[in-house]
Amino acid sequence: MERHLDEFLSELRNKLLEMSSCAESMISRAIAALVERDTSAVPQVYEYEERVNRLQIEVDELCLRIIALFQPAASDLRYIIGAVKTNTDLERLADLAVNICHKAERLLQEPPAGEFQVVPRMAEIASQMVKESLRAYVDRAPESARAVLARDKALDDGKAEVTANVLRLMERDPQHARRALDIALVSRNLERIGDHAKNIAENAIFVAEGKDVRHGAGRLG
Amino acid sequence: MERHLDEFLSELRNKLLEMSSCAESMISRAIAALVERDTSAVPQVYEYEERVNRLQIEVDELCLRIIALFQPAASDLRYIIGAVKTNTDLERLADLAVNICHKAERLLQEPPAGEFQVVPRMAEIASQMVKESLRAYVDRAPESARAVLARDKALDDGKAEVTANVLRLMERDPQHARRALDIALVSRNLERIGDHAKNIAENAIFVAEGKDVRHGAGRLG
Repeated sequence: MERHLDEFLSELRNKLLEMSSCAESMISRAIAALVERDTSAVPQVYEYEERVNRLQIEVDELCLRIIALFQPAASDLRYIIGAVKTNTDLERLADLAVNICHKAERLLQEPPAGEFQVVPRMAEIASQMVKESLRAYVDRAPESARAVLARDKALDDGKAEVTANVLRLMERDPQHARRALDIALVSRNLERIGDHAKNIAENAIFVAEGKDVRHGAGRLG
Repeated sequence: MERHLDEFLSELRNKLLEMSSCAESMISRAIAALVERDTSAVPQVYEYEERVNRLQIEVDELCLRIIALFQPAASDLRYIIGAVKTNTDLERLADLAVNICHKAERLLQEPPAGEFQVVPRMAEIASQMVKESLRAYVDRAPESARAVLARDKALDDGKAEVTANVLRLMERDPQHARRALDIALVSRNLERIGDHAKNIAENAIFVAEGKDVRHGAGRLG
């Protein structure tokens, strides 16, 4: 029996949800390594990374197959093209969790730096943004996507707070400059994870409404 | 008279080439603001940014129209899907040039920091990678794309050199920590521009050979 378009779309949905769930785990494990100094979290991040990389290739392959087999039009076509983009965003934000993990591994060689409680708070927000943007995408729920866009300010504020702390640490203890720089870079990685979640949310709005909300653009024909 | 697929593909090619050329100018103007302290370069970066943003929306729209009108198969379909991804990479790397420009604007308020000659060298490499990867994409030239992938090491080395310089500056003149942090972040922005060029090059190889070279993957069906 031939498979229907709906079955392919449901396979696509499941793969995207699995990628998102892996990425959320990667963020939380990388932060556990960084903040709770939990060394057992490090190999877990790399295991999830492999799964995400494999899924990325599978999703691209599946999107190409769906277009070639069904030549979907209008909103289904937008959904598949949006899935190709969302796939890229998921892989890249997972990669940023790996970057955080690299820094955690270096910081684990040094005494604890206890003054950056804002980092796990940023991680929590970024991870939620990933989860909610992806859910908005697969559910074609533009209102939930708009809620994600509104949460970005909290990450910007977190970054500003980390930067101020880091500069104070550098000025007070210049011999800790490397450690302070790493913490500053972690806050940038978390901000960028949020940026990818925003991209996914914008895709979700575009798919659901045919409206391109990037760069303040109007309707896309 | 109806337009043929080839005309649409050539329009797509021209738009991508224009985006790349804008992005290259943005990188060079942002670095002129940073290194030569050329304040006239700053508004130019923002003008190019607007053009890139407009082109990004046009390219996505064009790709959707081509698929809907012509239902291309095999290598043309791969080319269009790859163009959607390449489009995203071009817009994001242009955005990184804007980030560099923001830091240049802040650094222009302070006395010159003359010790970071490696930054313009990194910028030159990154800009060349953008130009060559995009050219490899639109020419469907996988060998040129492979040459781009090989150049990434030079950016990694540049980043390591900048980081070492920056940490020395922080330790020697802790009151210049903010300036040093900004230079470190610029080197990361340039590294990420190189990463986007690599993505475009990988797309080019995938389109030309049907081979997915990401994550060491084999042939994609």
